[in-house]
Amino acid sequence: DQQQQDTKKSSIMRILVATDNHLGYLEKDPIRGDDSFNSFEEILQYAHKLKVDMVLLGGDLFHDNKPSRSCLYRTMELFRKYCLGDTPIKLQFLSDQAVNFFNKFHTVNYEDPNFNISLPVFSIHGNHDDPTGEGGLAALDLLSVSNLVNYFGKTENIDDITIYPLLIGKGETKIAIYGLGNIRDERLYRTFQKQQVKLMKPIESKGEWFNILVLHQNRVAHNPKNYVHEQMIDNFIDFVLWGHEHECLINPQPSSIGEFHITQPGSSVATALSEGESKEKFVGLLEVYKNQFRFKPYPLNTIRPFVLDTITLADSKINPTENEEIATFLENKVEAMIIMAKEKAAGKPSENLLPLIRLKVDYTGYSTINPQKFGQRFTGKVANPNDILLFTRKKPTSSKKQQ
Amino acid sequence: DQQQQDTKKSSIMRILVATDNHLGYLEKDPIRGDDSFNSFEEILQYAHKLKVDMVLLGGDLFHDNKPSRSCLYRTMELFRKYCLGDTPIKLQFLSDQAVNFFNKFHTVNYEDPNFNISLPVFSIHGNHDDPTGEGGLAALDLLSVSNLVNYFGKTENIDDITIYPLLIGKGETKIAIYGLGNIRDERLYRTFQKQQVKLMKPIESKGEWFNILVLHQNRVAHNPKNYVHEQMIDNFIDFVLWGHEHECLINPQPSSIGEFHITQPGSSVATALSEGESKEKFVGLLEVYKNQFRFKPYPLNTIRPFVLDTITLADSKINPTENEEIATFLENKVEAMIIMAKEKAAGKPSENLLPLIRLKVDYTGYSTINPQKFGQRFTGKVANPNDILLFTRKKPTSSKKQQ
Ligand SMILES: [Mn+2]
Ligand SMILES: [Mn+2]
Ligand SMILES: [Mn+2]
Ligand SMILES: [Mn+2]
Repeated sequence: DQQQQDTKKSSIMRILVATDNHLGYLEKDPIRGDDSFNSFEEILQYAHKLKVDMVLLGGDLFHDNKPSRSCLYRTMELFRKYCLGDTPIKLQFLSDQAVNFFNKFHTVNYEDPNFNISLPVFSIHGNHDDPTGEGGLAALDLLSVSNLVNYFGKTENIDDITIYPLLIGKGETKIAIYGLGNIRDERLYRTFQKQQVKLMKPIESKGEWFNILVLHQNRVAHNPKNYVHEQMIDNFIDFVLWGHEHECLINPQPSSIGEFHITQPGSSVATALSEGESKEKFVGLLEVYKNQFRFKPYPLNTIRPFVLDTITLADSKINPTENEEIATFLENKVEAMIIMAKEKAAGKPSENLLPLIRLKVDYTGYSTINPQKFGQRFTGKVANPNDILLFTRKKPTSSKKQQ
Repeated sequence: DQQQQDTKKSSIMRILVATDNHLGYLEKDPIRGDDSFNSFEEILQYAHKLKVDMVLLGGDLFHDNKPSRSCLYRTMELFRKYCLGDTPIKLQFLSDQAVNFFNKFHTVNYEDPNFNISLPVFSIHGNHDDPTGEGGLAALDLLSVSNLVNYFGKTENIDDITIYPLLIGKGETKIAIYGLGNIRDERLYRTFQKQQVKLMKPIESKGEWFNILVLHQNRVAHNPKNYVHEQMIDNFIDFVLWGHEHECLINPQPSSIGEFHITQPGSSVATALSEGESKEKFVGLLEVYKNQFRFKPYPLNTIRPFVLDTITLADSKINPTENEEIATFLENKVEAMIIMAKEKAAGKPSENLLPLIRLKVDYTGYSTINPQKFGQRFTGKVANPNDILLFTRKKPTSSKKQQ
């Protein structure tokens, strides 16, 4: 009946999930300096538009462990602008706040009566913004002590990890969020092997919780002992927000082993000119009702257009001594990529942004040309004129950056 | 009659004045690391005890231009603890907040409806915490954007300075606070000489304002062109809060030239083992009713006891070759000073703190001894074992530190 419908509707927990915002990335670059802030602001605007109950972030909110003053300032400005206001919070915080949060005030930010919080943000730390400052403080602790963000998932002893979840209710729905801020992958692997990663299930309301794990670790195995394998994740977990991997794989994939689903939103700003980062980027709306969830991706429309392509000089049949002809060939290719970038961004807020262009050139049998010099002709047309070209040879070594 | 009495009473503006808190000074020192925070906390506790309407700070809130994460964290923690709450603010803010304050929210902190501010703090910057960060940002801007402190007195053009006062009313009392954050003294001197320091008087309620100037500059002339002379201060000013000079001269001194009074609270933590810093330290309660003021000093009881003395080796008549005897002589003197420090602190919260001891030794006709080595025997008895002794000669060169 209608009443049941209403109860159900008011029991749907709406969570916006995002990660790896890398605020401050290239902040001094005259072209790209605002990119990380613009996309993060778009995320906060989505939170408003979608009337979510909370935002859940998966780490690497900051690009630098010690964000510049200006970066901290802009970040605080954004949180103050979007997270305070009169919209009432419909969540009940059910776990011990003194256990979940580390500052002296021991409260989830919206329950502090001195602040009018309208949008609670919960975040773990990543490897870029981990708590390695004096006193084990992270940049996120400054957002926590100023009550702008609920920072959780800090571990005291990385050899013996106990995670007490945030327990949050909304009507009939009860969620438990297990946060695991980044730990060096090799160390965490070892702790998992020793069965010393313990997720503490609440005693109350057994079986009624929708269990979310938020982590910021390698998902791709760079070597056999420096990533988190799905089988290491407890079987009672229902949903995983995976941070750290920058490629956007937003649609929840069922685990091949457990019964949970994994969303990997990826970064909201490209910090590498790689295949993974060149794909369209999304954030996700996770709706939970009791033990069921629904998920919908939302595209980030402020992302600077980025086109990546690969070319093999040998296929051009140009004589390797004809340097001019080779340069023109590459130039034409880059011009075509710029047009493609324009088409990709058409109609979006990002359409007036200079694009990122990366052309991988297999130059086997040819010599390289100076990428900086080549890029000069694209100044004012491309956001990254200095590194458009990347020369590779037949047996390219895979290069992986820390994300 | 009673009603008039009540109107008068509710029109008295109560302002706690303090300056040069140098938060973070020696924060890594295992003995003295907390000193700056402890005394600043005592100041905020005075603000509560005395039920003041506001706290007015004269600059050098932070010791380092780039305070450590831990320092920023502890500072924010203190402001959040003491400046938020339910006590109603009885002030009317009358000037254009967008002109007075620099952040995007353009509001005095207690008028932002999203924060429950109970104790407004107003501060200019000093030379230690001036806005030299990216984007002309000071550490105080982080406290401003997080709405914990009202930062004012930032100048855009130091060759042409226009100061728009904060205009604040309480009942029948109206005050105008002119803030001038620190500028290099030589530059400011020149701007004064060119008559380019303009204090903008409000058009409204002419003659009704109690005019306060807050500045952070040399008061002592280190050379003829690098200080602010009283005659440079506009005659309509009634009261001056002088920051930067660390010696506590709390009782308002009438100006020898104008008709104003000057309070110089001095630093709340000794950053030099000098005569000026060894005196008792105070903050002040400034009460203003219409054009009259009353002022009362309050001692800081958390200040680490500090005894400074001078001794001339020649007076001892000890044979200059008798090194042992000289050392014993100085040791006895230091022991006596430690006892004196204990007596000074008796009954205060500071009585269990190890004292600062500085003995200036005129060694004319004698040789020096190694101060570090000498200090070893006072480890655990003195807060500064490494620099108890300072050797000087008959014609000592005066050493002045930046404050
Ligand atoms: Mn990462
Ligand atoms: Mn990342
Ligand atoms: Mn100073
Ligand atoms: Mn100072």
